[in-house]
Amino acid sequence: MDHRATARIAIIGAGPSGLSQMRAFALLESSGQKIPEIVCFEKQNDWGGMWNYTWRTGFDEYGEPVHGSMYRHLWSNAPKECHEFADYSFDHHFSKSIPSFIPREAFRDYILGRAEESNMRRCIQFNTVVSYVEFDREKEIFHVRKKNLTTGKSSIEDFDYVIVAVGHFSMPNVPYVEGIETFPSQVIHSHDFRDARQFAEQSILVIGGSLSAEDIALQTFKFGAKSITISYRTKPIGCKWPSKIEEKPLLTRMEGRSAHFPDGSERNFDSIILCTGYKHHFPFLNDDLRLVTTNCFYPSQLYKGIFFQEQPRLIYLGMQNLYFSLSLFDAQTWYVRDVILGRIPFPNKLQRAEDMLAWKTREEKIEDKLDALDFQTAYLKELTSATDYPLDDLRLSGTAATFKNFLDDKESNIINYRDKQYASSITGTKAVMHPTPWMEVNNYSSVDFL
Amino acid sequence: MDHRATARIAIIGAGPSGLSQMRAFALLESSGQKIPEIVCFEKQNDWGGMWNYTWRTGFDEYGEPVHGSMYRHLWSNAPKECHEFADYSFDHHFSKSIPSFIPREAFRDYILGRAEESNMRRCIQFNTVVSYVEFDREKEIFHVRKKNLTTGKSSIEDFDYVIVAVGHFSMPNVPYVEGIETFPSQVIHSHDFRDARQFAEQSILVIGGSLSAEDIALQTFKFGAKSITISYRTKPIGCKWPSKIEEKPLLTRMEGRSAHFPDGSERNFDSIILCTGYKHHFPFLNDDLRLVTTNCFYPSQLYKGIFFQEQPRLIYLGMQNLYFSLSLFDAQTWYVRDVILGRIPFPNKLQRAEDMLAWKTREEKIEDKLDALDFQTAYLKELTSATDYPLDDLRLSGTAATFKNFLDDKESNIINYRDKQYASSITGTKAVMHPTPWMEVNNYSSVDFL
Repeated sequence: MDHRATARIAIIGAGPSGLSQMRAFALLESSGQKIPEIVCFEKQNDWGGMWNYTWRTGFDEYGEPVHGSMYRHLWSNAPKECHEFADYSFDHHFSKSIPSFIPREAFRDYILGRAEESNMRRCIQFNTVVSYVEFDREKEIFHVRKKNLTTGKSSIEDFDYVIVAVGHFSMPNVPYVEGIETFPSQVIHSHDFRDARQFAEQSILVIGGSLSAEDIALQTFKFGAKSITISYRTKPIGCKWPSKIEEKPLLTRMEGRSAHFPDGSERNFDSIILCTGYKHHFPFLNDDLRLVTTNCFYPSQLYKGIFFQEQPRLIYLGMQNLYFSLSLFDAQTWYVRDVILGRIPFPNKLQRAEDMLAWKTREEKIEDKLDALDFQTAYLKELTSATDYPLDDLRLSGTAATFKNFLDDKESNIINYRDKQYASSITGTKAVMHPTPWMEVNNYSSVDFL
Repeated sequence: MDHRATARIAIIGAGPSGLSQMRAFALLESSGQKIPEIVCFEKQNDWGGMWNYTWRTGFDEYGEPVHGSMYRHLWSNAPKECHEFADYSFDHHFSKSIPSFIPREAFRDYILGRAEESNMRRCIQFNTVVSYVEFDREKEIFHVRKKNLTTGKSSIEDFDYVIVAVGHFSMPNVPYVEGIETFPSQVIHSHDFRDARQFAEQSILVIGGSLSAEDIALQTFKFGAKSITISYRTKPIGCKWPSKIEEKPLLTRMEGRSAHFPDGSERNFDSIILCTGYKHHFPFLNDDLRLVTTNCFYPSQLYKGIFFQEQPRLIYLGMQNLYFSLSLFDAQTWYVRDVILGRIPFPNKLQRAEDMLAWKTREEKIEDKLDALDFQTAYLKELTSATDYPLDDLRLSGTAATFKNFLDDKESNIINYRDKQYASSITGTKAVMHPTPWMEVNNYSSVDFL
């Protein structure tokens, strides 16, 4: 690795992971240390990434894929205590204790609150999309072609490091379902789901068995769908659903309005929502730089889940399945910073491969959600123990325990799980109750901390 | 220009214009003449371009923008006699006389019927997207980077000519409307409109005043929408609409479900369909090769409406507003072929500029639809008179006259205009009547020529 503080670093994306990377460097800079030159390219006109809600679907005003997958009434689907920055608490941001489950507006406000503390916004080129990255082996440098979307002008800049911080919840994975082309009404992917009220009084077929399916079923239930059928591929979500929501194995085919299920039953639907997940999608990277991975807890091409093994000056943030999110990004970005600055030794290729294989072997033993959570907790521990990120083992274990309690609570009460309160492992503060049960909140006038 | 029959030509897109270009060369080849090497890159898995209907919206299975903007029940919106190949008649293809207005399936069948006559399919690389084109000034050659979507592998090939045949009805133009983010239901662009039955019983707001707005209003009317309000920017379509369809000037803002209009009225809607047109969108071309144009009848960077003035070995097909379509593509592609082969002299830059300015001056005088049609007829005449494409002046003038009759007929009877019959200027054949009036056809079992 090249440890110069004089390096040039490109960060692609000013969402939570890119902002976290800038935070890590900004803290050093504010303590008077020299940091590398950072340029962040962001295709949107503001920072916040996925947390910038948009009414648009498909393509934006410049013909770029719309990044956002958020819906109007999205609330966090895990307690905020599981997604707390160790160096910037919810208490600090909101100046009081707030409920454990919060709407997207509040979550965005919290993330951007920390970003605004530093002056890293000056490093960001907004409305600028990275269209191509290749590594020049001769000059040992990355050529990054970017395009200013407002002027339409492209140009190439060179960098010593490229940090891919574009997330992996933006490009829909849309499998073909036999006969779906005969369905006479709306078929959308969860990426394009914006407002559950559109589905009031409808019979909805939700295809998928993971978190999107679960939450979109809840959303459409809350806003008055007549019935929701969740059709899962691998296994049912298995909650105690209300009578309007049922789970069925993956349909075998559509025929007009009718879905046929493996048990021989069939049922008519008014709309189909594909909750079939997202792709890791990096069309802007040259073939030899492109991470190829399924959804897993340890992408096999990434040392420490971060550094591209074949070219470790190419860095990927947050490409894992995420139990932890903000603190996982921080754990990674503090580590990245310290590797770039030479504070953490960077082993040779074989040593890295051995470390990666050890983690992959460990990952293969994951059998259920709790194993996966333990795996990710151990992963965070390894990263944070190498840096000054203030998430010590005790706090991290506390957060993991809260996560487990929450998973239990959700399983026992899927409809009302967002009304529970948890305590922060960072500050010790117990969340307050919502003034209104989540199922009854349909606007934010009753959310007093907004 | 380089006139070698040994040139290598890249065609981007195997839709109607790309297929037309291959046809032009194939005809020469089948008469024993040597033709250049042609490689056509097509991102879909079949030829037909826009005419390949898809249930998908947004992104395809590879994360590429879905090309298709067609809807299930789309029928031609002009008589087939205005869109007839001069060298391959509808009579020939269907072996009988068929009605003037035909569903998309029949139109696709006709287009592909001609394509299947040649063996040009061997030139096409399917599932292959062109991701970048740049011109190497030193070697005087185009570098074309393509990606095989099924393998994910990219590679670069060099070409003497690049023909851009990707159309301009695929990338939606989506303007912001004040308050649209507060609308609690579905907002789609016509690009994503697939099935009018989804809007049955709904009050629809159609934003736009051109052909998409007109036809989507008719579609939703036919399939049972409660009401349709067309909100136009420039001027009303001005047909004699049935009482369920009304036209209003461009709304000033949305507020929840309610659209506010300049006359002070407001009205609630269940869905919004943006018929706001498409962008000329060529993100795969280096800045210096990219056509920048609005919708017009003579893009000012294209000599003969075809050859990119700054680099005339870069060729654009069908980038004009289209009254004529298939015959316009043929007029262009026969001309392109003969320029490449040195059969048509290619003037120097100044001479080209003078010719372009003369056409632009003429275009500026267009005041209405009839002027525009006359302009495009004259444009076709100039092109076809230089080649052996069998569209003589008499036939072309006949087709133009049919177009004018049709425009009159449509204006006087918007609901039933598709039940009219016209005569072919190519064969003289008069179309037969539909067995069922268009307004009553809701499946194709009654369309006996399919």
